[in-house]
Amino acid sequence: MTEDGRLERLSGMLKRRGFLLPAFEIHGGAKGLYDFGPVGGRMRSRVNQRWLDHWLQLGNVVELSCPTVTPYAVLEASGHVGEFSDFMTECGSCGEASRADTLLEPHHPNPDALKRDELQALLFQVQPPCPGCGNQAWSEVKAQNLMFNTTIGAGDSGRPGFLRPETAQGMFTSFNALHRHFRERLPFGAMQVGKGYRNEIAPRQGMIRLREFNMAELEYFIDPEAELNDDLSPWDDAPLHLISDGGNGVEITLSEACKQQLIRHPTVARFMGITRDFLVDIGIDPSRLRFRQHEQDEMAHYAVDCWDAEIEGSYGWIECVGIAHRGCYDLESHEKATGKTLRARREFDEPRTITIDAWTIDGATAGPAFKALAGAVKTAVEALPKSTSFPCEISLENGAKVVVGEEHVKPNQKTIKETGEWYIPHVIEPAFGIDRIIWHVIDHAYSELEKNGEPYTLMRLSPTIAPVDYAVFPLFEKDGMGELAWNLHQTLCKTSGLVSMYDASGSIGRRYARADEIGVPICITVDHQSLEDGTVTVRDRDTGEQHRITIDSLS
Amino acid sequence: MTEDGRLERLSGMLKRRGFLLPAFEIHGGAKGLYDFGPVGGRMRSRVNQRWLDHWLQLGNVVELSCPTVTPYAVLEASGHVGEFSDFMTECGSCGEASRADTLLEPHHPNPDALKRDELQALLFQVQPPCPGCGNQAWSEVKAQNLMFNTTIGAGDSGRPGFLRPETAQGMFTSFNALHRHFRERLPFGAMQVGKGYRNEIAPRQGMIRLREFNMAELEYFIDPEAELNDDLSPWDDAPLHLISDGGNGVEITLSEACKQQLIRHPTVARFMGITRDFLVDIGIDPSRLRFRQHEQDEMAHYAVDCWDAEIEGSYGWIECVGIAHRGCYDLESHEKATGKTLRARREFDEPRTITIDAWTIDGATAGPAFKALAGAVKTAVEALPKSTSFPCEISLENGAKVVVGEEHVKPNQKTIKETGEWYIPHVIEPAFGIDRIIWHVIDHAYSELEKNGEPYTLMRLSPTIAPVDYAVFPLFEKDGMGELAWNLHQTLCKTSGLVSMYDASGSIGRRYARADEIGVPICITVDHQSLEDGTVTVRDRDTGEQHRITIDSLS
Repeated sequence: MTEDGRLERLSGMLKRRGFLLPAFEIHGGAKGLYDFGPVGGRMRSRVNQRWLDHWLQLGNVVELSCPTVTPYAVLEASGHVGEFSDFMTECGSCGEASRADTLLEPHHPNPDALKRDELQALLFQVQPPCPGCGNQAWSEVKAQNLMFNTTIGAGDSGRPGFLRPETAQGMFTSFNALHRHFRERLPFGAMQVGKGYRNEIAPRQGMIRLREFNMAELEYFIDPEAELNDDLSPWDDAPLHLISDGGNGVEITLSEACKQQLIRHPTVARFMGITRDFLVDIGIDPSRLRFRQHEQDEMAHYAVDCWDAEIEGSYGWIECVGIAHRGCYDLESHEKATGKTLRARREFDEPRTITIDAWTIDGATAGPAFKALAGAVKTAVEALPKSTSFPCEISLENGAKVVVGEEHVKPNQKTIKETGEWYIPHVIEPAFGIDRIIWHVIDHAYSELEKNGEPYTLMRLSPTIAPVDYAVFPLFEKDGMGELAWNLHQTLCKTSGLVSMYDASGSIGRRYARADEIGVPICITVDHQSLEDGTVTVRDRDTGEQHRITIDSLS
Repeated sequence: MTEDGRLERLSGMLKRRGFLLPAFEIHGGAKGLYDFGPVGGRMRSRVNQRWLDHWLQLGNVVELSCPTVTPYAVLEASGHVGEFSDFMTECGSCGEASRADTLLEPHHPNPDALKRDELQALLFQVQPPCPGCGNQAWSEVKAQNLMFNTTIGAGDSGRPGFLRPETAQGMFTSFNALHRHFRERLPFGAMQVGKGYRNEIAPRQGMIRLREFNMAELEYFIDPEAELNDDLSPWDDAPLHLISDGGNGVEITLSEACKQQLIRHPTVARFMGITRDFLVDIGIDPSRLRFRQHEQDEMAHYAVDCWDAEIEGSYGWIECVGIAHRGCYDLESHEKATGKTLRARREFDEPRTITIDAWTIDGATAGPAFKALAGAVKTAVEALPKSTSFPCEISLENGAKVVVGEEHVKPNQKTIKETGEWYIPHVIEPAFGIDRIIWHVIDHAYSELEKNGEPYTLMRLSPTIAPVDYAVFPLFEKDGMGELAWNLHQTLCKTSGLVSMYDASGSIGRRYARADEIGVPICITVDHQSLEDGTVTVRDRDTGEQHRITIDSLS
């Protein structure tokens, strides 16, 4: 078999065998929406569970579950209302919407770095054909927000909302609950596995660019001034393939990459190591995995460092995980938008003496002048900087405004001892695109072989995430072999975490082939001898080796 | 402690300890949207996993995962576009939307059974006060669809869609993939755990009526003519509390209830038994669980039978599970809307001889008359009933219309042998409201006690779904006790499926109290002796008993 048409054969098999299917296909389907089918559904939930188990090992991470429907204010604070958009143009002939940068890919080395005006100019100059109808009649390029919008509530009580573009925001807004849960001890993390949404202008590349996708994110909150003691030694014998900003690809250990300042934070490095372990554990080929650092102009302005785990497969090198040091941006944004504090306290090793040089009220004059408001005026005046000049109008907490004159105030100079301070924690965020990862796990496991001159498909899925653990076959469904096989199948199904499949149709060879195609690690055959001595034939997917063992030793 | 205020104390604790919290609260929140917090998140995922494991034991059930964003056509076919609505009225004074039936609850025994006009008349007669502002100025009552709507795609390419109101439809539209997966052998089932959405007009009762909720559904496809051999004997020693349509409550076994025709289908009865086992397994008090049959006018017109599992708690008896025999309604609706077949084949025991008495074409006259169309005319004519009279205009497959005269046709009488037939499977659907179930698990586990004259909270959560399995306490964080405890905690965290919590603040008594409040089954204390002999104190939540065991025996 050659590589020609491999992607089509693989996609066809995934659909036929029930891994991944276009959703709602009998109704004409909808681009960018996929089902995980009878085989893929289990694989998805095993990958999700494996991901959670993997990060739970940190010992200071909890799982959250927040709504996908999200009020406008939350995503305005996060910046998504303003900035989560692609540049769109519509075909004046057939009406189909396209991404301007996609249309210009054959004509520019990096069109997604272009600004609106540049895209506009190039589009009108090049006039690429519409992928829908072939005509060349493009509308003005405009920024199209990529969030699915909806209304929360009915009638005039309805409020605008969106489907979340990521799971992260619910974890940021939960910061205070997390801080309380961890008894105010940083670092700690929250993680969430769930749906994210991105109303793509023109979805393509199958599972790579979906409108509704499965994601898994960890928000890890750290004190930027604390010593974190990230242990990178577990990866000292396993160098990673890194492409740093402005550099070439190197094979290097995480310890060395930190020492050389390629990776700018040790926790980012540690999370890269954990990410690699997770991906390899579920079946990604380590030789087709690399970490690429974002270039300065590619990275969000607030980010300190960002590395993508890229996996090579049928669509080339695809970003599947992003590990970003986001500084204090997220918590600070929500603080600013809400006026609530999202902070942790840092105790000083030694109490610090702090000199305050500012203003307070002169009770003798301010008391009679402001009467009942005098207390509130004092609070407000003490918050003013020393550079304030009087008279000066100030706002009190209750909203009232008063004019404070020179005669009402006096300098307030004192030294106080502070034992600690409140600060906004920084966030390191590993964000995993579960669908893309599952796609690549399948892509790497899918092997096109030949058997007796015929094409033969073998899926070498890791037993950790294989959708079916055992396939049980009765040689024939007679003489009690069917019942014995069904009982064994039922017993296996009753073991928590195990899935067994019963298959009685066709020759044993055909059944092995069907099981191999979906990656069942172990097939078990019940035959005449089983009825006599309680043994079955157990056959290994990858080696094809067969052994006879007793049924009791299986369950 | 009295029951007075129990619900408020429980809700307060759930929020404070991070079980359940109003979502996005720092942004003012949104009614009907909740977070599962640092403690509740893990509990939710364990209940979901337990549910999947439970039904997987059937041995002929697979897990699917379908999108939540659903095209209009799918939900039009299912009937949700037309019929998934509540009657709404808006306050002319403050603009708040209310459900008309809720407003009228104090004035009518069963207002949700009223039709629009009846609600309208009663509302105008009674003029109940607005729950928002107290005024009495209600708008016309109108049906308000309860689906969240959105647009799939951008610009003129955008298509209307909704957030799914249930997970079921994606499983019905996947029928052919399921049928293929199970090698065309019924019965089989598909199940899905995921989000459902209902844009409530006015959410209330906390976790009972959410706008975005967690649900778990199984669609079990059966041949209505097959012998199913549902074994009800496992429940012969465990009678259930049943309230049948028109009957009083009885304690009765499932076998007996089927014999008496209270339950109308044995698979429905078996699923009621499995449902009971699941609920009791995760901690529902069996004495506060009952099954209530829908009355004829409460049941959808197509349904054969429907039983709700109701659980008693702080809000009275609440429907938490529905087990419905839905006949062939769902698959038939999607067939009608799409023109695709969603069928299974039933082989006859003996081939059947079928007499066909209808029409065919007379080749000698129809051939010259219809020329190239003659074949298509033949197909169309043979599909006509014997009662057809000619001449008659008929539509051909290609859309063309022709007039067929008496001279073109002749009677077509023949007998053929059929070995089987295609039919639309029936569906039995257990649908679980996971949030409501978790609420009641917590409600039943929550115990208000006294200890040394102080109120004391103990959560008697089942270890199968407790959010934290172990709490590890160093007696003090010095002399190496902190390190030893942290290492033990880390080791426990590395065991798949286990969650450990490390707590070093306050007295051991305070730490036991905090662990008891969130239902940690086992607390482990590391003290001076641990440093010497490697033993720790293990304390049981429910009995308070303490034992010393070696660390090695734990991990």
